[in-house]
Amino acid sequence: MAGGSAAGPNAARVINQVTHGLGSMGIWVRLPLVVGGAMPAEDVAGGGAGAGAGDAGESAPSDPWLAWQVLRALGEASTRLGVLLQLPASPPPPGALARWIGEPLRAAVLPVAAFTPNKRGCPVLGKAHQEALATLFAAGVQVILAGPPPPPGRFEGAAAAPPSSSSSSSSSSWAAPFWEYLAYAFRRPPLPDAEAALEAGYRDYLQAPLQPLQDNLESQTYETFERDGAKYEAYGEAVRRLLEDRVRAHGGAGGAQPAPTTVIMVVGAGRGPLVAASLAAADSVGAPVRLYAVEKNPNAVITLQGRLAAEAAWGPPPGAPPGTPPRVTLVAGDMRGWVPPERADVLVSELLGSFGDNELSPECLDGAQRLLKAAGEGGPGPGGAGISIPASYTSFLHPISASRLWADVKGYDDLEHAETPYVVKLHRFTPLAETAPVFTFVHPRGGGGGGDAVMEDGDGAGGPSSSLNPQDNARYASLRFDRQGAPAALIHGLGGYFETELYGGVTLSTHPPTHTPGMASWFPIYFPLATPLLAPAGEAITVHMWRCVSPVKVWYEWAVEVGGGGGGGKGVSVSSGAATHIHNVNGRSYFVGL
Amino acid sequence: MAGGSAAGPNAARVINQVTHGLGSMGIWVRLPLVVGGAMPAEDVAGGGAGAGAGDAGESAPSDPWLAWQVLRALGEASTRLGVLLQLPASPPPPGALARWIGEPLRAAVLPVAAFTPNKRGCPVLGKAHQEALATLFAAGVQVILAGPPPPPGRFEGAAAAPPSSSSSSSSSSWAAPFWEYLAYAFRRPPLPDAEAALEAGYRDYLQAPLQPLQDNLESQTYETFERDGAKYEAYGEAVRRLLEDRVRAHGGAGGAQPAPTTVIMVVGAGRGPLVAASLAAADSVGAPVRLYAVEKNPNAVITLQGRLAAEAAWGPPPGAPPGTPPRVTLVAGDMRGWVPPERADVLVSELLGSFGDNELSPECLDGAQRLLKAAGEGGPGPGGAGISIPASYTSFLHPISASRLWADVKGYDDLEHAETPYVVKLHRFTPLAETAPVFTFVHPRGGGGGGDAVMEDGDGAGGPSSSLNPQDNARYASLRFDRQGAPAALIHGLGGYFETELYGGVTLSTHPPTHTPGMASWFPIYFPLATPLLAPAGEAITVHMWRCVSPVKVWYEWAVEVGGGGGGGKGVSVSSGAATHIHNVNGRSYFVGL
Repeated sequence: MAGGSAAGPNAARVINQVTHGLGSMGIWVRLPLVVGGAMPAEDVAGGGAGAGAGDAGESAPSDPWLAWQVLRALGEASTRLGVLLQLPASPPPPGALARWIGEPLRAAVLPVAAFTPNKRGCPVLGKAHQEALATLFAAGVQVILAGPPPPPGRFEGAAAAPPSSSSSSSSSSWAAPFWEYLAYAFRRPPLPDAEAALEAGYRDYLQAPLQPLQDNLESQTYETFERDGAKYEAYGEAVRRLLEDRVRAHGGAGGAQPAPTTVIMVVGAGRGPLVAASLAAADSVGAPVRLYAVEKNPNAVITLQGRLAAEAAWGPPPGAPPGTPPRVTLVAGDMRGWVPPERADVLVSELLGSFGDNELSPECLDGAQRLLKAAGEGGPGPGGAGISIPASYTSFLHPISASRLWADVKGYDDLEHAETPYVVKLHRFTPLAETAPVFTFVHPRGGGGGGDAVMEDGDGAGGPSSSLNPQDNARYASLRFDRQGAPAALIHGLGGYFETELYGGVTLSTHPPTHTPGMASWFPIYFPLATPLLAPAGEAITVHMWRCVSPVKVWYEWAVEVGGGGGGGKGVSVSSGAATHIHNVNGRSYFVGL
Repeated sequence: MAGGSAAGPNAARVINQVTHGLGSMGIWVRLPLVVGGAMPAEDVAGGGAGAGAGDAGESAPSDPWLAWQVLRALGEASTRLGVLLQLPASPPPPGALARWIGEPLRAAVLPVAAFTPNKRGCPVLGKAHQEALATLFAAGVQVILAGPPPPPGRFEGAAAAPPSSSSSSSSSSWAAPFWEYLAYAFRRPPLPDAEAALEAGYRDYLQAPLQPLQDNLESQTYETFERDGAKYEAYGEAVRRLLEDRVRAHGGAGGAQPAPTTVIMVVGAGRGPLVAASLAAADSVGAPVRLYAVEKNPNAVITLQGRLAAEAAWGPPPGAPPGTPPRVTLVAGDMRGWVPPERADVLVSELLGSFGDNELSPECLDGAQRLLKAAGEGGPGPGGAGISIPASYTSFLHPISASRLWADVKGYDDLEHAETPYVVKLHRFTPLAETAPVFTFVHPRGGGGGGDAVMEDGDGAGGPSSSLNPQDNARYASLRFDRQGAPAALIHGLGGYFETELYGGVTLSTHPPTHTPGMASWFPIYFPLATPLLAPAGEAITVHMWRCVSPVKVWYEWAVEVGGGGGGGKGVSVSSGAATHIHNVNGRSYFVGL
C-alpha cells in the first residue's frame, strides 16, 4: 500500500479479504473519538478475544465517524467489524460518545494521561471523562486502560499506597491505582429486582409482535403480563376515578339519589386482572357495579370460571339477599359477535401493543362500541354516552441508529424480515431526534363518546400532517425531524412508543419522556430499514408512516427520506433526493390479521 | 389524500400498489424539466401504450429531478415507472436535459407555445429548443406535441398553407405545420453503413466479456473482428513505420549496409489478419521479414495452414532461390510454453479487451517477453532490445448514470451479476464527469524494452494515485472526479474505455475523446454498482479500482465513494460518509482465468 489517500480503501480491501476468508476472526478498527485526535503510537494494553486493530484513522479524516461509515460500507457492513474507540487525554466534548453507542463499539481505550492527581496525589478523572465512561459502562462497552505509565512522582499518593504485589516494576503495579479508581467510581449499582434482571436479558433481542386477535395467548404470556403491578394499579385508579365521578355526579355517596349501578364490560378479560382491579376499585368507592368479562380464549375462560367460583369479590355484592346474581358475568366468545343483555357504561380493555394501535385495539373497540351506551342512555360520558378505558392513545416515533438491531435483521437475509416491525428492549442505539407523535385514536368514536376519531395534529417535531381517511382507522403521518447542528448519522430504523390516557388524567406510557415508572409490559417497537440511510450533518429526516386497513388485515408501511417533508401549506419541500423504498408494500412482509 | 406535502409519498404508495399488483401496466410520471416549471393543466395529447401520468410534480419541489429520485426510491426503482418530461415554452437552459438521458425517460412533452413564427409566419423553434430535441431524438425518446392550439393569426404562413384535411377545425389540422417543422428539422440521417446498423442493435445490450485465454474463440467471433478494417490498417501502419525506422537506422533502402531481416512474432495469430497486415507492410517498405504465427486455438490453426499453403505472400520471398523456406512459420501452441528457434525483433499481438488489460494482455505479453530480443541483441528497441506492438495501453473510467443498464443487471436478482463487468454499447447514459486514466501497461517491461511497467500518473481528473506493486500486474487507482457546480446525480456504475499506442504514434482508442474513426471491434465496458449511490450537487465522486492477480486468475474490485479521495500528500480526505461496498471481493463474482 502506498499513498496517504489510499490507506482507507486499501485497508478496507484487506479487511474484506479477512472477513470473507477466515473463520470467526473479528477485526476491531481503532478510531479516535475526537476530530483530529492523535492516535498514540503505542500498542493498546489488553483487548478482547481475537481482536486485531487496523488503523483506519491513519489518513487523518476530518471526522472519524465518517471514515468509519465509509470503511463499513466498503466492507459490506460485516458483523465481524467492530470499533475500538480511542478516548482523548483532554476532556472529551459532551455528547461526543452518543453517536457511537448505536455502532458496533467493542471497546474504548482510556489513556493514563487522562488522569490527574487529586489533593492526596491519587489518580482521578475529570467530569467529562467520568461522563464518557458512565455512557460506555451503561452501554456495556469494555474500557481498556492504556499506557505509557505516568511520569514518576506524578501520582505520589498512589505510589505511597501499599503495593499489592511484591514486584513493583511490573505494569500491573503502576496500573493498579488507576484500576482501583475506575472500579470504585463506576461500581455498578445492583439491579433493582428480579424483573429488571429479566428485562436485561431482553436487551436488543428482537421479538415478533403478538397477534392476540388472531392467536390465543399462552398461559405463560398472561402470567408475565399479570405480574406488571404498575399497569393494573393504573387501570384500578382509572376505574376508581370514573366511579367517583359518577357518584359525585349523582350527589355524592350519601346524596339524595342513590348512585346508579355502573355496568362495566371488560373486553378481552384474559385471566381476570382487569376484572379484579375494577371490582377492587368499585369496593374502594362503594359504588355498585355489574361486570361482564368477555374473553374469546377458551383456556383463559377456564381460569375465569375458577376465579368466579372461588373469589368472593366476583360473587354477589356484600350484604345482598340470597339469590342475588354474582357481580361478574362470564361471556365466553368474541366481543365482535356477542349480543349483550344490556349496554355498558364503560368498556375496559387492554388491547394496546408496543406501538399503541398495532394489536388492533382501534378495530376491536370500534367493533365493541355497539356494546356501549349511546348518548342519552345515561352513561358517564358526555351526553350520557358510555366511555372507554382507555379513552385515547397516541403512538410516537423517532429515527434511530442501531447497527446491532439492523445486523440481526439483515442476518435473516430476506425481504420479509427486513420489513417486519419487532418488539425489542432498545439498548445499544442512538436516537437521532426527539420523538414525534404519529397516530392518535380516541374511543368511543363519533358523536356519542369521548370525541372524534380524527387525528389531532401534534405539536412536537413536525407532527402528523394528514390522515388518509378520518372515517376509518387508516392513517398517514409525515414526520419531519429537524436536525440543525446535529452530526451526520446512519438511520437503521425507527423506534416506536405509545402513551395512553385511561381515564381522567390516569395514563400509561412507554414513551421515554413520560414512561410509567415500574411498568414492564411493553418494550418499544423497532421498524427496520432494509438498507440504512445516511443523513448528512444537519439535514432533516422525514418519516412517512401509513397504517393500512383491509377487510382482513391491518399493516404498516413506512419510508424514510433525507431532507424532505412539508413546510407550509404550499407544499414546499426541500429534498436531498435520498430515500428508502416504501417498506411492506400491500402488507407483503408483515400484517396483523383481523 | 390530503395535505400538500403528502402528495409525493402518497402518490408513491399508490404507484407501488399498481406496480406490485397489476400485470404489465406502466406508469409515466409527468415532471417539469425546468426548476419551478409550471405544469400545464391540460391533458397531454398522445402517449405510449398503457401510459398514465401521475403528477409527482404537484408539490412544486425545488428540483424535479430530486423529486423523481425520491419517488423512484420509494417505489423500489420499479422498471414500470417512467418519466414524461414537460419541456418549457421558454428556452430550456443548455444541458438541462443531459441528466435525464440516463433515466427511464419515456417521452417528452413539447408545448405548442414553444414555437414562434418565422418571417413567413411559419412555426419554428429557437436554438435551445432545437438542441433539446436533438438530444431527445438521439436518445430515442419520443416527443409529444401538446396544445392548446396557438391563438388565431399567430402563424399566418402556416394557416396559408394548403390544409391536408378538409375539416379545418380538427386538431390534426392546426397541429400539422408544427409536425411538419419537426419532421423536417429533425429528419434523421440514414445510418452510415451496415456495420453501424448492426451496432445500433447492440445499444445498451449487456454482454459478458470474452475470455480468449481460457476459452477458444469461435470462427464467427474471428469473422466479426476481422471485418474491422480500421484496426488492421492501424496495425499494418505500425509495422510499416517500425520497418521503415529499421531500414532508416541501417542507412536507408539503398544504403551501404543491407537491411537486416526483421523477425516478427504474431502471438495470438487467430485466423491470420495480423500476419497478412504485417507481410503487406513489409512488402510496401521492401524490408525482409521472417514471421512466426503463434496460435493455441486448433481450429484457427487449420485456417492458418490453409492460408500458408494458398497465399503467395506467406511463402518464400519474391525472387528467392528454390528451397527457400516460406516467410511465415506456424506455431500451433500456447505462446507461454513455446521454445522458439530464435528471438524476435517485434512481438505483434491483439490481446486487448474493452478495458485494455481485462483480457490479460499484460500477463500474456509478460509470458511472451522471453521470446523477444534482450538489450544488445540487435533488436529495433532502445539498446537493441526487441519491441512490442502494442507498446503500451491505458484504461479510462468515469462514473455514469444509466438506469436501464442498472435495471437490466438488477433483473438477474443476484450478487454475481451485480459484480460483473459487462461489454456494452453505452447509449442511454449520462456521464457524470470527464474520464480519468486508470491503469497503464508498457511492453516490454523492465530494462530492455519500451520502458518500465510502473504506472504513470495521469494528469486528468485526479489520476491514479498509486500502484499496489509495480513489480507485477496488480494495480490500484483512486480516481477523484470533481464536480463543482454539477447537479445531484445517481451513480449506477462506471463506464470504461482504453487507448493504446501500437508503435511510433499509431494509436487505437475506444476512449470517446480520441476514438479511432470507424473502429467497431470494442464496445465500452460497464462496471455496475449493486446499489446506486446518490452524489449530492457539487460533491466529488471518488472511484477506487483494483486489478488483482493470483496464480490462477485476474479480477477487478471496485468501489465508489461520495466526496472522499486524497488531496495532497498529507492524506487529507473529505468524505460524506457515503460509499458502496467493495465489489467482487476476492473475485467471488467474476474473474478471468489464467
